[in-house]
Amino acid sequence: MLPFSRVTIIGLGLIGSSLARAIREAMPTVRVTGYDADAAVREVARAIDLTDDVTDTAGASVTDADLVVLCVPVRAMGAAAAEIAEDLPPDAIVSDVGSCKADVLAQLSAALPGRKVIPAHPVAGTENSGPEAGFASLFQGRWCIVTPPADADPAAVERVAELWRRVGADVETMDPAHHDLVLAVTSHLPHLIAYTIVGTASDLEDVTQSEVIKYSAGGFRDFTRIAASDPTMWRDVFLANKDAVLEMLQRFSEDLSALQRAIRWNDGDALFNLFTRTRAIRRSIIEQGQDDPKPDFGRSH
Amino acid sequence: MLPFSRVTIIGLGLIGSSLARAIREAMPTVRVTGYDADAAVREVARAIDLTDDVTDTAGASVTDADLVVLCVPVRAMGAAAAEIAEDLPPDAIVSDVGSCKADVLAQLSAALPGRKVIPAHPVAGTENSGPEAGFASLFQGRWCIVTPPADADPAAVERVAELWRRVGADVETMDPAHHDLVLAVTSHLPHLIAYTIVGTASDLEDVTQSEVIKYSAGGFRDFTRIAASDPTMWRDVFLANKDAVLEMLQRFSEDLSALQRAIRWNDGDALFNLFTRTRAIRRSIIEQGQDDPKPDFGRSH
Repeated sequence: MLPFSRVTIIGLGLIGSSLARAIREAMPTVRVTGYDADAAVREVARAIDLTDDVTDTAGASVTDADLVVLCVPVRAMGAAAAEIAEDLPPDAIVSDVGSCKADVLAQLSAALPGRKVIPAHPVAGTENSGPEAGFASLFQGRWCIVTPPADADPAAVERVAELWRRVGADVETMDPAHHDLVLAVTSHLPHLIAYTIVGTASDLEDVTQSEVIKYSAGGFRDFTRIAASDPTMWRDVFLANKDAVLEMLQRFSEDLSALQRAIRWNDGDALFNLFTRTRAIRRSIIEQGQDDPKPDFGRSH
Repeated sequence: MLPFSRVTIIGLGLIGSSLARAIREAMPTVRVTGYDADAAVREVARAIDLTDDVTDTAGASVTDADLVVLCVPVRAMGAAAAEIAEDLPPDAIVSDVGSCKADVLAQLSAALPGRKVIPAHPVAGTENSGPEAGFASLFQGRWCIVTPPADADPAAVERVAELWRRVGADVETMDPAHHDLVLAVTSHLPHLIAYTIVGTASDLEDVTQSEVIKYSAGGFRDFTRIAASDPTMWRDVFLANKDAVLEMLQRFSEDLSALQRAIRWNDGDALFNLFTRTRAIRRSIIEQGQDDPKPDFGRSH
């Protein structure tokens, strides 16, 4: 049996539009309704026939939904939830796709007291944004982490989990605070570092920006991909998951200082040992199907 | 006319073996001889018919060469050059493929006084190592930076440049010191940061290594690719290009501290402005053909 029959997606960017496409492909009888606060995005969504219906207000999009998925930047979740509170059917489940969960759970619980709130986070994405950047297979073989509140209805949790399984994801359940710590290291810190190094490289006096671009195949280009991700989304993530991000950043800075010291004092063994250890992690990621085994990410040569 | 007719490659790893393949494919009449200090590598090279000949000593590999390309870790260049000094024909040109050039030029000049030394650096590679990891198209559309000493014979420089053009590279000439500064930011710093963050992530107490691997698609996996590069090669690069690497590291750390402060003080505008700026750099890299325009590096979904 299908977990839901009428799904509303609020926020039709990369993730929202991918979810819409994935649901329509995997569960063609489910009615999918879309809404986006940006009129231009709604127009694109209609033009590309993204969902069965695109409404002009958030309220109108949820009136007969049995699931509403908020796909907006994490600090906009509370406002988006407040906008639908009045029109939300009593039994509807509200979920989201935000990259940090404790803060989002607090926002949604405050805006929708007494309602069924089951946050989730599909760990998937690309560097592109907007309704046309999405695609149905984005969640295939990726993990979706469901982070229900302590008092959540297990049946509601299972329905949300089943939706993600149907669109190709593997599902894990996690405590929101632990999720935020795990993602701080596997996602938020890498994005922060990538944004920083791309900024550093574009600010040099003795090396021109055109040289940085020209010789980027030496490693720099790998960082530019995630540093091209949506600015609003990421601004919100760092502010909403501040404590965990600052904690991971502190650890990273200490480790970087240690490596800096090893270089300054010609400690080749320390460098070699670290570089050997990190190689093993890459191997595990490939073995577990979380990245492409082809050299250079399979870029064409 | 072919720039060389008898090329010797010393060091048959990823770059050396790719160059051997590329030369044989682009210039089949050129005789290619190979040597590697590791007997096991020589055996593999013979088994896969990598070069026309594989010799058991470095000296024997160069006796009739008109070009010798050293493809060994940068701090092994001087020793490799010393090993061939006696057998090197008087007019032969000696080049290399090292990732830092001032230090390598100094090593080669000291080991081969009065000989034609024309260092070069093809800005290309993958995370894999060894003679079987190489492939002929590695240098296609990539840059090769030739860094001749001030008193180099222009005809010799041109012959080395022409070799790289024949295997598909675009060639630039640069002062060795400037090369080292440019590569410190486009290649050495990214590798250092990637090695560090992968190390940091594998050292946490509250997040398990299996969680780091499992949820790596959130961004972390992009860093693991270059953190899987050859440990010996990279240890040498950081030590041989110490000054430029430490300078870039200092700038990066300052920028990271500024970002850390912006997060701590909720300065969303500072974050948003940086994240918007870095997006433009990615676009330029793609426009100039230095990376794959497909989302997610074109990883399959």
